[in-house]
Amino acid sequence: MSYQKFRECIDACVACAVACNYCATSCLQEEDVKMMAKCIQLDLECAAICRAAAEVMSLGSGYSAHLCRVCADVCNACAEECGKHHMEHCQACAEACRKCAEVCEQMATAV
Amino acid sequence: MSYQKFRECIDACVACAVACNYCATSCLQEEDVKMMAKCIQLDLECAAICRAAAEVMSLGSGYSAHLCRVCADVCNACAEECGKHHMEHCQACAEACRKCAEVCEQMATAV
Amino acid sequence: MSYQKFRECIDACVACAVACNYCATSCLQEEDVKMMAKCIQLDLECAAICRAAAEVMSLGSGYSAHLCRVCADVCNACAEECGKHHMEHCQACAEACRKCAEVCEQMATAV
Amino acid sequence: MSYQKFRECIDACVACAVACNYCATSCLQEEDVKMMAKCIQLDLECAAICRAAAEVMSLGSGYSAHLCRVCADVCNACAEECGKHHMEHCQACAEACRKCAEVCEQMATAV
Repeated sequence: MSYQKFRECIDACVACAVACNYCATSCLQEEDVKMMAKCIQLDLECAAICRAAAEVMSLGSGYSAHLCRVCADVCNACAEECGKHHMEHCQACAEACRKCAEVCEQMATAV
Repeated sequence: MSYQKFRECIDACVACAVACNYCATSCLQEEDVKMMAKCIQLDLECAAICRAAAEVMSLGSGYSAHLCRVCADVCNACAEECGKHHMEHCQACAEACRKCAEVCEQMATAV
Repeated sequence: MSYQKFRECIDACVACAVACNYCATSCLQEEDVKMMAKCIQLDLECAAICRAAAEVMSLGSGYSAHLCRVCADVCNACAEECGKHHMEHCQACAEACRKCAEVCEQMATAV
Repeated sequence: MSYQKFRECIDACVACAVACNYCATSCLQEEDVKMMAKCIQLDLECAAICRAAAEVMSLGSGYSAHLCRVCADVCNACAEECGKHHMEHCQACAEACRKCAEVCEQMATAV
């Protein structure tokens, strides 16, 4: 698999990591932070794994598919939790997670 | 500056990043999460900068001193906030931050 | 400074980190790897600092300007070294570094 | 699995990431860099995945076992390649990789 083929997936992972971090810090400023605790936790886990998947792909690594497999799973979990909250940062994060999960699924089976 | 001389500082940065992440996720499980919001935010910023400083030093980079300068600052800020809370994870994080700030200060001026 | 204002700079940092990693692994496959050693070294340092700057900005951190200051410096150094080599990956990396340096300079003085 | 139980594995991953980065930059300064190209490439992949595993564990994530599974694999591959070279940085890296692979294997099956 060439770097160019990795490119769409790298972009989705990076966009998702940024959306997750932004969602986490925005959640911390909400009135009811406690209600957002699980969302923040998943945001942080998802951001960490997305960053790792993006980096491993940008190195053209043969382990990319394995990282993308885990990344798709955490993205789906994060999308489900974020999707429960109506705030714009949560909805935007859920969408970024869903898109990232989709391309990571493809990468996980394609490589 | 040799890699061996970087070693103590790398270790302090890595230990601080781990303590910050652990403090953040522990804060998310506290009864009063809202009271911990600023602590969590600083934990995340501090962890990110500590990881970066450790990585740049482990590459033997000439930019290490610059990263350590920023790292010392965020560690001091995080130590101050964490130090306000009596929970063990906050106290342990404050201590890791203080130690990291100290060695990063030395690195920032020594290199 | 709002997250939206950080957005252009985050994107430039992330794109630069990816270009640096791709350049490093591509250099490793060149016939004369020794000639590329300094390029690879700077690619790795630049990628690490760009990733850190992007993460800190995505957390909306008050330390963003400080990271962007260091990031602009390493990007300029990496652009200069990569610019000496005619390979497409080096030229693309040099361009990503120059763009990142420019927006990081603005961020470093604006925040 | 508690954070304390993660601790040994986090330490092994972090130590391995640092050893891999140091090995990579040391390889870049060897007389025959071309001979070290595969070693450098694996060092970079291994460092990235070790950092990710350490971070995910420090967040107490339920995805830790999955990351540790991938981490054990890349550590074994990196240990094999580094083990072929007599330089101290390669031998030290190979040893760090072997230790990390061992504890990651345990984590991957235990969680």
